[in-house]
Amino acid sequence: MTTPIRLSAEFLGTLFLLTGVVGSGIMGEELADGNAAIALLANTVATGAILAVLIVVIAPLSGAHFNPAVTVVFLLRGEISALMALAYIAVQVAGGVCGTWIAHAMFELDVFQVSEVSRSGAAQALAEIVATFGLVATILGCLRRKPEWVGPMVGLYISAAYWFTASTSFANPAVTVARSLTDTFSGIAPVDAPIFILAQILGAVLCWFLFLGLFRSESKLQ
Amino acid sequence: MTTPIRLSAEFLGTLFLLTGVVGSGIMGEELADGNAAIALLANTVATGAILAVLIVVIAPLSGAHFNPAVTVVFLLRGEISALMALAYIAVQVAGGVCGTWIAHAMFELDVFQVSEVSRSGAAQALAEIVATFGLVATILGCLRRKPEWVGPMVGLYISAAYWFTASTSFANPAVTVARSLTDTFSGIAPVDAPIFILAQILGAVLCWFLFLGLFRSESKLQ
Amino acid sequence: MTTPIRLSAEFLGTLFLLTGVVGSGIMGEELADGNAAIALLANTVATGAILAVLIVVIAPLSGAHFNPAVTVVFLLRGEISALMALAYIAVQVAGGVCGTWIAHAMFELDVFQVSEVSRSGAAQALAEIVATFGLVATILGCLRRKPEWVGPMVGLYISAAYWFTASTSFANPAVTVARSLTDTFSGIAPVDAPIFILAQILGAVLCWFLFLGLFRSESKLQ
Amino acid sequence: MTTPIRLSAEFLGTLFLLTGVVGSGIMGEELADGNAAIALLANTVATGAILAVLIVVIAPLSGAHFNPAVTVVFLLRGEISALMALAYIAVQVAGGVCGTWIAHAMFELDVFQVSEVSRSGAAQALAEIVATFGLVATILGCLRRKPEWVGPMVGLYISAAYWFTASTSFANPAVTVARSLTDTFSGIAPVDAPIFILAQILGAVLCWFLFLGLFRSESKLQ
Repeated sequence: MTTPIRLSAEFLGTLFLLTGVVGSGIMGEELADGNAAIALLANTVATGAILAVLIVVIAPLSGAHFNPAVTVVFLLRGEISALMALAYIAVQVAGGVCGTWIAHAMFELDVFQVSEVSRSGAAQALAEIVATFGLVATILGCLRRKPEWVGPMVGLYISAAYWFTASTSFANPAVTVARSLTDTFSGIAPVDAPIFILAQILGAVLCWFLFLGLFRSESKLQ
Repeated sequence: MTTPIRLSAEFLGTLFLLTGVVGSGIMGEELADGNAAIALLANTVATGAILAVLIVVIAPLSGAHFNPAVTVVFLLRGEISALMALAYIAVQVAGGVCGTWIAHAMFELDVFQVSEVSRSGAAQALAEIVATFGLVATILGCLRRKPEWVGPMVGLYISAAYWFTASTSFANPAVTVARSLTDTFSGIAPVDAPIFILAQILGAVLCWFLFLGLFRSESKLQ
Repeated sequence: MTTPIRLSAEFLGTLFLLTGVVGSGIMGEELADGNAAIALLANTVATGAILAVLIVVIAPLSGAHFNPAVTVVFLLRGEISALMALAYIAVQVAGGVCGTWIAHAMFELDVFQVSEVSRSGAAQALAEIVATFGLVATILGCLRRKPEWVGPMVGLYISAAYWFTASTSFANPAVTVARSLTDTFSGIAPVDAPIFILAQILGAVLCWFLFLGLFRSESKLQ
Repeated sequence: MTTPIRLSAEFLGTLFLLTGVVGSGIMGEELADGNAAIALLANTVATGAILAVLIVVIAPLSGAHFNPAVTVVFLLRGEISALMALAYIAVQVAGGVCGTWIAHAMFELDVFQVSEVSRSGAAQALAEIVATFGLVATILGCLRRKPEWVGPMVGLYISAAYWFTASTSFANPAVTVARSLTDTFSGIAPVDAPIFILAQILGAVLCWFLFLGLFRSESKLQ
């Protein structure tokens, strides 16, 4: 695939992902009558489903990273150049922010917002490490044996991780930046974003390192 | 497949789709005790599931459009004649209306109704553009690489889009007409239907145009 | 497969199906705090999931009918002898009844019960015709092109039909008999069972007839 | 695969499984506003999804047992040595306990807890026999014909069994031990654990025995 197609694909994919996450959070909270579990359940269904679809549709074009932490892992594996990785990360963030704004526009909210939802503390950072470790393990594990299942499996993984991690599993620096720009259900205060992003990169790199150690010989062959 | 089989398949498929959408909306609202999120969750599960099944079962017969916006895209791609496209659209609308009436009959409601649910404004139109753009992208994307996954992926896409678009993602002119004839959970006032339909066609054509631009050379080969 | 294996498989499969349907109905109602939509949502998830699993696991042994209406269709198609069909139906009913009793035992209820849940009227009968028509169409449609998808697709179809048919889609005479023996969420008064069973057979035969008409030539080849 | 890889895989898999089960139980209960059905629904989605992912990703490394009852069945089938089976069981229990502790840490709870949730009586034991019988039947049935579907099918089976068994389907001795160390939604008082474990082993062995009887000749060939 040519570079413009790859970057357009990453941009559009991350855009739709954020429209999905932020939009379903708004709708869930509006309808759930104060029951946060029902709102999160709706948010879970929408996020898991759209992730599976986006990865299946876009993976043949750009690899369907939609996630700087994932792009960093592929950079470490030598499967993407440093320059292309930077370009991927830039369009992921830009796409995510645009996706958030489209969600706002669709729900007749102010387009430009800043989140005030506090998500801080060591436990939240641990949750993001666990969440991103698991996400990268899902991707690398599927790529080894079932590459065509990456989409559905990532959708299922995130559906689970929304509930079992205390941070509801952002697991994605572009998503974190974009969600800092919405003061709705799925937001995160900008002041808390840097720790989330660090934890996500750490979890991703830890998982890459573990795979490298466990499968050193096989990795070389791949 | 012969023309009668193709048209019967489109008719029956759109009929069952609307019975599914309208029927589960009625049941969801009846049981959900006033919690609209729970009603929409039930509506989501039923719609996503029946869409996946109908497409898997009926795609070998007629392509399983069930949707004039999708038929228009295949017309633009030169994969269906103008005459057949018109016939498809006619039976889709007829099937959708019959499906709505069957849902009413099953739930002992007046068969003939007109919706009074207002769904208007620029934000709703934007939502329908986004929803139908994404639906067509899901279909065209899967057809390029994973044609046998169109059914499950469209089911997942609509499950997500019910929540992340402010209009709950009609994304289908035949569905819009048919839902204007039910004054229940899933209805839309007839006066609001034309804007929805325009937005849906616009979203579909935009997506077709994007695919054409991105994959000009490949499209010619297909 | 030998006859004992086939009949054991039908018995065990229908048993687990009813344990799933009745058990999840009891648990759903117990926990849902009076919200019938939440109880039915739990019942839906459990029924759809166990159906998919049972069909995938048991289809290689007996065809995984678990349903006299389905067995009648295969009899009409000449794919099972009349004698074997009778034996299938007998073990399906016996398995279903045992499954209901196991559910009662697990939840510390009286094992032997009779339902008092009234489900009567023409609309309910129409709902059962629609539900069983759709179920048989799902099965025959998948068998034509995607035989390995019958399990997941039937699970999805029933998940949808629980919500879009006014009767919550029994669609199965053995299930109807077995559910007349539980006075819990999923029960049906014995006096209402015969109409349900007639409607189910009618819906199944109608669907078989439609397939025969549409695909006469192809059917002969198969 | 080498022994260290196999044991690491069983350890990590069971760890993530318990983080998923316990973590989503905590989150579900926190958010569900006292409605236990909604909490269990969230717990169900998370557990079913993470199980499917873990089995798909880890099966090529260790077989993805995560469950001493399953390991015992493979020991009886002569597919794992007694020594390796013991090692598997040890790392499964250790992984499960660590996974529970990680869930506690993420949710800022005391890491070391003991459950006070009573789950006792003959009906609960019967439920665990049924649950584990069905789980092993799902695994062995899929392995015979659709080995690549074990992950999704086990995920679906447990999603159903959470609702149709009165014990919410622990079906796993390592999970039972690990859940005795959390005083949250998914806990079980240690005094009730031994009966659960016995019932699980019994259900698993019964299922193995049934398969042996039904498929004696075929089993020898495999």
